[in-house]
Parts: sequence; C-alpha cells; structure tokens
Amino acid sequence: MPHSPEEKRKVLARIRRIGGQCEGLERALEAGADCGPVLQQIAAIRGAVNGLMSEVLESHLREQFGQPAADPADRQARVAEMTGLIRSYLK
Amino acid sequence: MPHSPEEKRKVLARIRRIGGQCEGLERALEAGADCGPVLQQIAAIRGAVNGLMSEVLESHLREQFGQPAADPADRQARVAEMTGLIRSYLK
Amino acid sequence: MPHSPEEKRKVLARIRRIGGQCEGLERALEAGADCGPVLQQIAAIRGAVNGLMSEVLESHLREQFGQPAADPADRQARVAEMTGLIRSYLK
Amino acid sequence: MPHSPEEKRKVLARIRRIGGQCEGLERALEAGADCGPVLQQIAAIRGAVNGLMSEVLESHLREQFGQPAADPADRQARVAEMTGLIRSYLK
Repeated sequence: MPHSPEEKRKVLARIRRIGGQCEGLERALEAGADCGPVLQQIAAIRGAVNGLMSEVLESHLREQFGQPAADPADRQARVAEMTGLIRSYLK
Repeated sequence: MPHSPEEKRKVLARIRRIGGQCEGLERALEAGADCGPVLQQIAAIRGAVNGLMSEVLESHLREQFGQPAADPADRQARVAEMTGLIRSYLK
Repeated sequence: MPHSPEEKRKVLARIRRIGGQCEGLERALEAGADCGPVLQQIAAIRGAVNGLMSEVLESHLREQFGQPAADPADRQARVAEMTGLIRSYLK
Repeated sequence: MPHSPEEKRKVLARIRRIGGQCEGLERALEAGADCGPVLQQIAAIRGAVNGLMSEVLESHLREQFGQPAADPADRQARVAEMTGLIRSYLK
C-alpha cells in the first residue's frame, strides 16, 4: 500500500526527501551549527513526516472508497478499518 | 454535524468533559498548584481535544461512507472532501 | 505556579478563553453546525491549549532561571527538573 | 550546538537512527507493505523526531543554565532565548 503506481511514486518521493533532510541535519550538526537553525531543520523534518502520514492515509482512503464496495459488509469493514486508522494516528 | 442523535450525544459529552477539565484547571491555578500537576492537567486536556477531533472525523467518515454514494460524482466529491479534512487536521 | 501575579493573570486569562471556546463549540454542535466549521473550532482550541502549555513552561523557566541559583546543587536540580518537563511535554 | 562531545554524540546517534528508519520504510513501501504497518513505521519516525527535538532543547538548556550567567543581562538574554525556543517548537 498504496497500490497504484502514481500513489506509490508520490509517497516514495516524500520518504526520500525526508531521508535527504536527515542527511542535511547530520552534516549541519557535525559542522557545529547553532541550536536555532538545528531546531528549524528538525521542525521541517517533523512537518514532512506529518505530511507523509497524511499522504498515506489520504491514498488509502482514495483506494478504499474511490470505488463502490462489493456489498454492505465490505463497506462496513472498510469504514471500521479507516476510522481505526484515524483514531490511531491523529495525534 | 454529526447528524445521528447518538453520534451527536457522544461528541457533546466529550466537549462538556473538556469544559469541566478547564474549570478544574482554573481552580487548581487559582489555588496556587505547582507547575508539574498543572502541566499534567493541560496535557490531559490536549489529549481530550485530540480525541474529540478524531471522534468528529470518524463520525463524519461513517456518515459519508457508511451508505453507498448516489453516483460516481457524489462518491468522488465525498472522497475529495474527506482527504482534504485529513490533510488539514492531521498535525 | 506561576507565582508572580502577572504570570498567573496571563495564564488564567488563557484558560478562561479556552473555556469560552468550548462553550462556543458546544452551542455550534447543538445548533447542527457542519463538520468543516466544527473541526476548525476544535483546531483553534487545540492551538490555544498548546499555547497555554507553552506559556506555563515559559513562565516556569523565567521563575527558575531569571534569578541566580542559591548554589551549584540548586542550579543542577533546576536544570534537571526543567529538562524533564521539556521531555515530558514536547510532543 | 550542542557543544560538548557527549551531547553531540547522543544527538548524532538519534539522527542516524532516524535516517535508518527512513530507509527501512522506503524498503517496506517498495516491497508493497500494507497500509497498517507503513503507518506504524511513520508513527515511530514521528516519535523519534520529537525525541530528537526534545534532546536538542534539553541539551541547549543544560549548556545555557548549567553554569552561572556572567551577569544579569546575560542571564536575561539566555532566559529570553530559551523561552522563545520553547514557544516556537512546543506544538
């Protein structure tokens, strides 16, 4: 998950960007950067990780609800799974 | 929103509990409580507000996707609205 | 805590404002407000609670470090308490 | 910042661990992992980034307040900088 090639590509691009931000932060710390800029870089990584989590949840929602469910039981199972994910990760 | 009486009742009960926690915090501060317990009460309120936000999003998802959409355009509109809400509030 | 009348007044004003926001949200829900505006009000409350937590931590830091410590042991105890509070509540 | 070799080593170890978690997540996504485990890995990264931010703030606090200030103006400047950092990053 996500299953479509386009969704997968978007999510992978976000992860690689976060990996690059971590490398930049590591270099900054090794070079003795000041506390203020270091915290700014960490806050940017935190924002990117939240954006990644949102992207994965949105992608899952599009895949689960973008097509009609097979039957009412399938629909209820999808709703129950998605509400559980929102409850677990919205914090 | 939420529309069903049961969902509305649950959400209202959460809000009233948060209101009560705020009153308890106000009394603690007026009585000169120490910083540690005050921060614990604030953290509990923060957790309750996150729980309320999750409850409202879950309730909206149940109402939007618990029944089949009228047609594909309606389905896509609901998916677009819900992903927008996740993007805005997951942080 | 906080001990000075001015710090206490600022923190109490924030809490009362959050209590007022909760009452506004309760009225909006009872009147059947839509999901979008309800989530915006909850997000505003979440921001206000974070602001309150920051205000209390800042106020405590001013009170603990705005005057010289009595001696090195007192200084280390204050540093240890403050780093523990940051670790517990920065999330 | 942080200036002491031990503080710097601890912070660098945290960053490298986060970089490793990002690589693990990238591999999981390329291998087609399910949404649930992917979100768990992202939540773990989010927790690690918050822990890193807290570590940097704690380390800065130890360096700023672990020794007596040179004079009252220096002390007030340090207090003002630290409260500004708490206000900016506690959210």
